[in-house]
Amino acid sequence: METANITFLPHNRTISVSKGETLIRAALQAGVHINAPCGGGGVCGKCRVRLEEGAVAEGISERLNEEDVAKGYRLACLSKIEGDVIVRVPVESGIDAAVLNQRMAPRHTAKIQAFDISSLKEKGLFSAPVDKIYLELPSPNAANNTPDVSRLVSGLRHQGGLHKLELTLSTLRRLPAELRQDDFRVTVTVIKPVREDGKNLITNIQSGDHSADSYALAVDIGTTTVYAQLIDLHTGEIKGERGDFNGQISYGEDVISRIMYAESPGGLTTLQSVIIGTINRLIGQILDKSSINRQDIATITIAGNTTMTQLLLAIDPRHIRRAPYVPATALYPSFAAQTIGLDLAEHTMVLLCPQVSSYIGGDIVAGVMGTGIYRDDELTLFLDIGTNAEVVVGNKDWLACAACSAGPAFEGGGIEFGMRASKGAIEDFSLDPVTWEPMLVTIGDAKPRGICGSGLLTMVALMFEMGMIDNTGKFNRDLGTNRIREGQHGVWEYVLARRDATDIDRDIVLSETDIEHLIRAKAAIYSGCMTLLSEVGLGMEQIERIVLAGGFGSYIDLEKAMTLGLLPEVDPDRIHFIGNGSLLGARMSALTNKIRYDVVEVIKKMTNFELSETPSYMSNYTAAMFLPHTDIEKFPRLRDRLEARKRLMASNLI
Amino acid sequence: METANITFLPHNRTISVSKGETLIRAALQAGVHINAPCGGGGVCGKCRVRLEEGAVAEGISERLNEEDVAKGYRLACLSKIEGDVIVRVPVESGIDAAVLNQRMAPRHTAKIQAFDISSLKEKGLFSAPVDKIYLELPSPNAANNTPDVSRLVSGLRHQGGLHKLELTLSTLRRLPAELRQDDFRVTVTVIKPVREDGKNLITNIQSGDHSADSYALAVDIGTTTVYAQLIDLHTGEIKGERGDFNGQISYGEDVISRIMYAESPGGLTTLQSVIIGTINRLIGQILDKSSINRQDIATITIAGNTTMTQLLLAIDPRHIRRAPYVPATALYPSFAAQTIGLDLAEHTMVLLCPQVSSYIGGDIVAGVMGTGIYRDDELTLFLDIGTNAEVVVGNKDWLACAACSAGPAFEGGGIEFGMRASKGAIEDFSLDPVTWEPMLVTIGDAKPRGICGSGLLTMVALMFEMGMIDNTGKFNRDLGTNRIREGQHGVWEYVLARRDATDIDRDIVLSETDIEHLIRAKAAIYSGCMTLLSEVGLGMEQIERIVLAGGFGSYIDLEKAMTLGLLPEVDPDRIHFIGNGSLLGARMSALTNKIRYDVVEVIKKMTNFELSETPSYMSNYTAAMFLPHTDIEKFPRLRDRLEARKRLMASNLI
Repeated sequence: METANITFLPHNRTISVSKGETLIRAALQAGVHINAPCGGGGVCGKCRVRLEEGAVAEGISERLNEEDVAKGYRLACLSKIEGDVIVRVPVESGIDAAVLNQRMAPRHTAKIQAFDISSLKEKGLFSAPVDKIYLELPSPNAANNTPDVSRLVSGLRHQGGLHKLELTLSTLRRLPAELRQDDFRVTVTVIKPVREDGKNLITNIQSGDHSADSYALAVDIGTTTVYAQLIDLHTGEIKGERGDFNGQISYGEDVISRIMYAESPGGLTTLQSVIIGTINRLIGQILDKSSINRQDIATITIAGNTTMTQLLLAIDPRHIRRAPYVPATALYPSFAAQTIGLDLAEHTMVLLCPQVSSYIGGDIVAGVMGTGIYRDDELTLFLDIGTNAEVVVGNKDWLACAACSAGPAFEGGGIEFGMRASKGAIEDFSLDPVTWEPMLVTIGDAKPRGICGSGLLTMVALMFEMGMIDNTGKFNRDLGTNRIREGQHGVWEYVLARRDATDIDRDIVLSETDIEHLIRAKAAIYSGCMTLLSEVGLGMEQIERIVLAGGFGSYIDLEKAMTLGLLPEVDPDRIHFIGNGSLLGARMSALTNKIRYDVVEVIKKMTNFELSETPSYMSNYTAAMFLPHTDIEKFPRLRDRLEARKRLMASNLI
Repeated sequence: METANITFLPHNRTISVSKGETLIRAALQAGVHINAPCGGGGVCGKCRVRLEEGAVAEGISERLNEEDVAKGYRLACLSKIEGDVIVRVPVESGIDAAVLNQRMAPRHTAKIQAFDISSLKEKGLFSAPVDKIYLELPSPNAANNTPDVSRLVSGLRHQGGLHKLELTLSTLRRLPAELRQDDFRVTVTVIKPVREDGKNLITNIQSGDHSADSYALAVDIGTTTVYAQLIDLHTGEIKGERGDFNGQISYGEDVISRIMYAESPGGLTTLQSVIIGTINRLIGQILDKSSINRQDIATITIAGNTTMTQLLLAIDPRHIRRAPYVPATALYPSFAAQTIGLDLAEHTMVLLCPQVSSYIGGDIVAGVMGTGIYRDDELTLFLDIGTNAEVVVGNKDWLACAACSAGPAFEGGGIEFGMRASKGAIEDFSLDPVTWEPMLVTIGDAKPRGICGSGLLTMVALMFEMGMIDNTGKFNRDLGTNRIREGQHGVWEYVLARRDATDIDRDIVLSETDIEHLIRAKAAIYSGCMTLLSEVGLGMEQIERIVLAGGFGSYIDLEKAMTLGLLPEVDPDRIHFIGNGSLLGARMSALTNKIRYDVVEVIKKMTNFELSETPSYMSNYTAAMFLPHTDIEKFPRLRDRLEARKRLMASNLI
């Protein structure tokens, strides 16, 4: 992707961004505040900037008169970057450069660590669980009229070196015709055994040579979203990809409400058919866009949390939500995809990622397997934040895990104006330290409709660091801005966007109750990590690497996450982001039989801690119910920044 | 069963028969002729006999006047035996006692060899493929909340000593509820692996203790008839049994016509659903009569010929009837019974008897396994005569087999008045050597409707031995009876029953064409046996035992079969009859895992000879196209009887 350098004055900060990006997003990345209370889209006209060198596309609206445009004024939210530019942001007079630079730190997003087939290839692990073998068998005659299966098995022994063969009834049914369609030249699909002494299962037979066409699907079933990938089993390449909301959302936001629905009459089969429907739709969309034949998909590897997986198979999940929280199984049998109504060929087999416990599901196991942390020396903390949060710590010698009851605050749950990351969601934010006016950036540059997880995280961190809220999450009521006010039920709030600037005909606010929800959620995750670490006798300083997974991780501003005390304060270089760990793991499992073999041992090795049963958890949690923590010494960089800011404010009388 | 002694005068032959039997059937067993051209049921009134001592029940009809009754006359076909009696049969005067005794030899049916569970128990082989294990598992608690499956597996390891466990999706689905219904006391159904290193498959879980209720079904699918048995897997006892015609009969009498129907559009699925319907009906009837729960049936073991088995699974059978006669497989995978529409529990597994070739199917393999000839030292000739005939020779060291294209003559096929063994079928026969009047016995003692296999065999053998037909099957036209006549198309025939004595308003006859069909059929079987023996370098004299199987075998008069040259002339004591070998084998396979293990090797060991490809077959066949054979020296006992008869006839001028 082509990039351009954008310099903001008077801050004199330069940042490199992709061409096509808007100026307002570039400013946020650079840590430069521009007043923008309408979320972009040129509605309020407040995000005026002036071009000093270079040019941008668009950026002009009726909010600017001809004279302004001639002088180089543009609306930052509408200006598309086409090349290097120098832009001046009108700022309040009398603020000294030190304050200016103090305002916002540039973004620190985690390094994205790509796990792909090349790493498997390097380690000699790339050997898919599926083989497609082309055979040219001798035609039968009077002297050799052994049964079709015997002929096939003998061919697989001699040409493919395969023994211990078994075949499915559907293959057997199709065998006589397929063998004879192209004079006993056939392609056989074989699912290898997990263990070497197991059986090779012949799942499909096709006349002619189809050995090059070997595909698999990898699916992540999240509580909120479902993603599917179509993978070439020869190259490891992703041939198609689609995501969508989990259709079960209409039956409850989180796993607990889904389980409750499943307990109602007919609920379980409804939820099963709904998720099957979502997956079938994704498969259809992927296949429609590719030239790949549904018949050439040998397996569908699925990872999901324990509840999602049990619902997929219509296994009653009621015991997942009741102490002592017993899931149905750890390992799942393989079975034909059509058994559960998946719209795939008769021969396509479902391979399910195993799970550890009711709250450490196949999604987490997949992440552990996909990243390979179970076979590395490095001591790693793996943290997956989605609708729930789970933490795994360990390396190739041992692994421990725990689930944190974080709740869905990071996905907008429990937040008055919380919403999922969709059009109109405030996803980024900054605050003017003098006027306390907001700078909002929304998804789709549309009028704001609500706040999504990343917006929430950023705004609370910024409000705290800039002194708008204290370490208990309460507003400073003496800042002299009418954006901070007492709300309807006596709860104090900050007005992010006023009614006329929103798309929902109401003021959009962030209240102290919302902030408390966020603090509870981050405290659950932080104390979960710390409790698990202390249970295994380790401290954060011994962790060599933090791997962040989950939809949430993709936009997380590491420094902000540490400011909140969501993440421990570590060198950001030690943090790696892998995106959707569940999907990654499903894909890697689909690609290498080694993972299917290893996972059986890994899930035995993963010691599960029930935090609610761990005495130190409650005290860790209580201590984390502050911003960033009751003990600021655990966050020395933040402590230094807060002290520097205090000194600056005192000297400048801000 | 209580018996009574019946003495026939003037023959002075005494026979012991079951009480309740009719006098006419007792006479046939004793080899005593009574004129009875109407097949029983008191229609013609010709089978008058006179009681000299003792009494019978019934036996009186309007055909006898009061005076006759008072004198002790009864109709033999209506007289039910209640105790010892002495009966005089009115015979033509002037026939000397030697001729009288010559007329008919008493019956020599084969010894019925019962194979039952006790022989398996003695040999330590009684270990069913299914185990039902009752477990009392610890309830989960906070300190032990492993998944349900792990708890179950651990219980099976510790209490059942089972390892390498796998479970079906349906078991997994039902597990959470079943475990908790009776406080973690459950019964687990485990299908053992065929080989020790294989996996134990958990197919069912039931709350509470059901370990005593372990049942299996054994089914024989014949081309004409289907039999099912319900077996107690603990005792080996047969708890219920039913047979019925194969519903596919309407789509063709023999396998070839079934295959042709299967090749027509929709034909294959029609034939599959018809046979499934037949089996479901039998299962329903058996269960209705028992107190056994469908849920307690763990397996259904099915044996059938190759075509029947492929049709059951809807595997296109077209290549079975086309050179080089390749069947789809030798071994079948196991699968859930519901997969093919069997009306059994979700967990019930189908186990199919493997097959050797297109014409040596699972029925024959089952017979070989069920009789245990594959593990005996004794050199055995196994002959199964049903709609087709198959022969196996060998012992524990080797086995060879061949299929004979005998055609369905023994089941009434290709015979003008041929019919299956059902009501009104002439099933037994004798002939008066002076008047050439017949004695007919029909199934159900009803007016005759046709001739079934046993009747045909008996009448042709008797006609030959008494000189009514010659060794090419042609009638002696000079016997002075109008029952021998030239039929409509110039073919000579014998009138078995005249129109008014039949139930079909037509004369029932046996023609030279019918006899030729029978000769072709018996020649195919005899020459099949001889060709197979010579191919393996053996003669009949080296065979230590002949095992006869098949519905046909149940009524076969061994001496008559040898008279025809259907069986080689051997000491009748060397012949054992096992009845339905396929059903026997299915039952034994259901009862002992050893057979499932052994059969894999046995089918490899069974060398299949295609008789049509074996040069000596045609000359053997041609030589056998006589009664009993072109070389009478192969049948010395018959030769002696024929010569004795010739001398007697000359001396008595009969």
